[in-house]
Amino acid sequence: MAKTNPGRFFEDYTLGQVIEHAVPRTVGAGERALYHALYPARHALYSSDEFARASGLPGAPLDDLAAFHVVFGKTVPDVSLNAVANLGYAEGRWLKPVYAGDTLRSTSEVIGLKQNSNGKTGVVYVRTRGMNQRDEVVMEYVRWVMVRKRDVDAPAPETVVPELSKVIAPADLVIPEGLTFANYDFAQAGEAHRWGDYEIGETIDHVDGVTLEEAEHMMATRLWQNTAKVHFDATFRPDGQRLIYGGHIISLARALSFNGLANAQMIVGLNGGAHANPAFSGLTVKAWSEVLDKAETSAPGVGAIRLRLVATKGGAPFELKGDDGKYQPDVLLDLDYWALMPI
Amino acid sequence: MAKTNPGRFFEDYTLGQVIEHAVPRTVGAGERALYHALYPARHALYSSDEFARASGLPGAPLDDLAAFHVVFGKTVPDVSLNAVANLGYAEGRWLKPVYAGDTLRSTSEVIGLKQNSNGKTGVVYVRTRGMNQRDEVVMEYVRWVMVRKRDVDAPAPETVVPELSKVIAPADLVIPEGLTFANYDFAQAGEAHRWGDYEIGETIDHVDGVTLEEAEHMMATRLWQNTAKVHFDATFRPDGQRLIYGGHIISLARALSFNGLANAQMIVGLNGGAHANPAFSGLTVKAWSEVLDKAETSAPGVGAIRLRLVATKGGAPFELKGDDGKYQPDVLLDLDYWALMPI
Amino acid sequence: MAKTNPGRFFEDYTLGQVIEHAVPRTVGAGERALYHALYPARHALYSSDEFARASGLPGAPLDDLAAFHVVFGKTVPDVSLNAVANLGYAEGRWLKPVYAGDTLRSTSEVIGLKQNSNGKTGVVYVRTRGMNQRDEVVMEYVRWVMVRKRDVDAPAPETVVPELSKVIAPADLVIPEGLTFANYDFAQAGEAHRWGDYEIGETIDHVDGVTLEEAEHMMATRLWQNTAKVHFDATFRPDGQRLIYGGHIISLARALSFNGLANAQMIVGLNGGAHANPAFSGLTVKAWSEVLDKAETSAPGVGAIRLRLVATKGGAPFELKGDDGKYQPDVLLDLDYWALMPI
Repeated sequence: MAKTNPGRFFEDYTLGQVIEHAVPRTVGAGERALYHALYPARHALYSSDEFARASGLPGAPLDDLAAFHVVFGKTVPDVSLNAVANLGYAEGRWLKPVYAGDTLRSTSEVIGLKQNSNGKTGVVYVRTRGMNQRDEVVMEYVRWVMVRKRDVDAPAPETVVPELSKVIAPADLVIPEGLTFANYDFAQAGEAHRWGDYEIGETIDHVDGVTLEEAEHMMATRLWQNTAKVHFDATFRPDGQRLIYGGHIISLARALSFNGLANAQMIVGLNGGAHANPAFSGLTVKAWSEVLDKAETSAPGVGAIRLRLVATKGGAPFELKGDDGKYQPDVLLDLDYWALMPI
Repeated sequence: MAKTNPGRFFEDYTLGQVIEHAVPRTVGAGERALYHALYPARHALYSSDEFARASGLPGAPLDDLAAFHVVFGKTVPDVSLNAVANLGYAEGRWLKPVYAGDTLRSTSEVIGLKQNSNGKTGVVYVRTRGMNQRDEVVMEYVRWVMVRKRDVDAPAPETVVPELSKVIAPADLVIPEGLTFANYDFAQAGEAHRWGDYEIGETIDHVDGVTLEEAEHMMATRLWQNTAKVHFDATFRPDGQRLIYGGHIISLARALSFNGLANAQMIVGLNGGAHANPAFSGLTVKAWSEVLDKAETSAPGVGAIRLRLVATKGGAPFELKGDDGKYQPDVLLDLDYWALMPI
Repeated sequence: MAKTNPGRFFEDYTLGQVIEHAVPRTVGAGERALYHALYPARHALYSSDEFARASGLPGAPLDDLAAFHVVFGKTVPDVSLNAVANLGYAEGRWLKPVYAGDTLRSTSEVIGLKQNSNGKTGVVYVRTRGMNQRDEVVMEYVRWVMVRKRDVDAPAPETVVPELSKVIAPADLVIPEGLTFANYDFAQAGEAHRWGDYEIGETIDHVDGVTLEEAEHMMATRLWQNTAKVHFDATFRPDGQRLIYGGHIISLARALSFNGLANAQMIVGLNGGAHANPAFSGLTVKAWSEVLDKAETSAPGVGAIRLRLVATKGGAPFELKGDDGKYQPDVLLDLDYWALMPI
């Protein structure tokens, strides 16, 4: 009897099914340092315990995206091992900061199923939740992936496509308890521009670039215990290339966005995202952002800003899609998120 | 007077000699995170403090192999700097888990000497012990290496070849104090199969592969303060290749074995091992295991399983040696160890 | 209005100006482990909490050079983003060890300005100080860089070239409070030679070599939050090479110097330094040292030793400059520092 995990196929999912993902993970000072070594991360709230304390938190949390990667990584063996494509994200919210010593685990609930007309694949929608050791939900998001069928003759399930918000309403964003930007130190944060200085529709070229390395994306992806073969095994794809985990590009682009958005400190909502084109070692990643919306919050001195974050491997900034509505070939990532910023 | 370490030559060893190895090392959260970044390590006991506590330990220990590497690394300047070959391991036992904040040091006792018939080299047998800051032995193992003579005319020592156990008897395995698998969470561990589900003679193909990178094996090897030039200096070998530290392959193979042996949580015995062929950057490592034996233990819910772990750089799984009794050219590692598993 | 940092140009500096650099950084167990993974660092005081305690310190500090890199990295966006060349260091002193949990920030005071005769560039001298969360100065140094003018027609400032000590007087070196080498364990430190065994003028070839990797120098440089494009972006230089941060070479050479100078434990003074030639991935770095001076200190068992540390990418050891007084093409680094050693 085979003891290795073959992954789930489309017909293995049923609506309402809750999958408890394996391998809890305790995070701490090591993950924090590695995040700073793997990405040019400089947001002060995650770099300095003192800055975090002045902002009403007990210390610097684990980077929001690191928390996302840990929660996400656990789902890979159950959700995307046989996935053909990662189709989208929605309704992502960060609910509790993650601190050194916290232990994270994940569950996913199947909230939608739709067999494709070719009969060979289907789309699975899951709502994933990450919990800490106190069973508090630290984050949640919806993801949908295209998964192969094991048996093309297996009957199609009833089609259920969940209604998902295009954008998280500002009132639904969760501000960490105690957070305040009332005494925000703009000089130490590295950026004079505050929430009031950003206009909806404004675009920012983040200027800096980072060339991708095999050792770096593999270390990052392993750190989140993401096991998908395609990221690690050069013999897996016919072209001998290792596909870079999409989350690596998300973290890289977010870190690059410091130069122009240093005060977009905390990520609290993930409205949507697309990995527009695959990324490989040797490419140089740059990033640009667009201000999509702004909202007030109830926390002292804290505003919310909705941003489009685009990672590219070349081309001019601010070019997202062609006349055909498709992403430009140089676009790697198109991410739509809410962040918190001092007003 | 030369101040650099020339290493010891064969005639520098005497039977019964005890060598205190240099540079104590405090380990902690950083080493733990790096281990997860460098290897696809997912065994729950080392990933989660909560899982470790539910298993009767005070928290997640440093990975057993990381403890081995730290203890081993210290011996390199004294034992293998002038070694021609690393010939074997035996009687390896893990005696105390290593926790964050522990400081490790090593000593080696020369337990055997045998000059080779060519008069140019000899075999040195050492029993190495790693101690923590409380002078508790955390692990011990025997290793024998072939070492060059400085002076071929130096007299041969009396030949003493120690009698070494081929296999550690189950009764001699040390179970960490307090360890219990009575409340083991198989879902969180990532594998439904328990000790009773594995049969002696059974083989498991671990399926996944990882391509070796220079930056990764060098970072790993440095982390254990192993100083052997051949791992770091591309100008050292005539072919310009950096030989990968054998322990890197051991850790990689062990991490890959999670897929099929996720419940083989703790390594408690090292019966033997051979680095069958050298490994270099660019190769893709896969692994397979064979169940060699099983034994009961006195700890609640804990069984012992003896496993052969084989790392390869290609070829079909389960092919170890040719008709000539020699390792297949694609075999990198053949390791024989005892692990603890929930019954 | 552009929100990204264009860096300062020569005419943006004024004498006496104090620049508060952005992004405070908390350091800890992760940075310590990464330092050991990125460099072959083995000095016992930084490797072992127990060794540090036996030396009168509360635990192992962050490596002195890691502290320097963190303090230095913060200055890059304000001082060297538009720099043409990093011209020199002087009067560097380590004033307080940095421990896990400390949060560092930096300020720089402009202490000299000199426009070059071409009218296009000028030299800026800054004295940089790194402070911990208790506002204690942990280190300080002077650096001078050549910076481009934004507007060649901008008027030249009055020329002020600070008088800088060629060498820090031994009496001005700051010994960490409580430091004692009275009970120094030479066996655990890895080197029998003490302060009294080194003679002024003595040279030491450190023998070992390390080949440079892109992933390693980028991870190191990011860890210190140094943002200079030229280190990360392969599309930045016309030749497609990523220039390696000079501090990476400093740390590598210092770690290599363990083999022969294992007892030169703490760095307390930086008299000067030159990055003689640029370093790129693929080169193999070796190091040699020369004893320049020795001095007694008031701390028990502690002597000071002044060392020249030279990193090379080839060539014979001990060859520094040609007959023309210029550095040999294989010399990467020429560093002049004070260290503390057991007498």
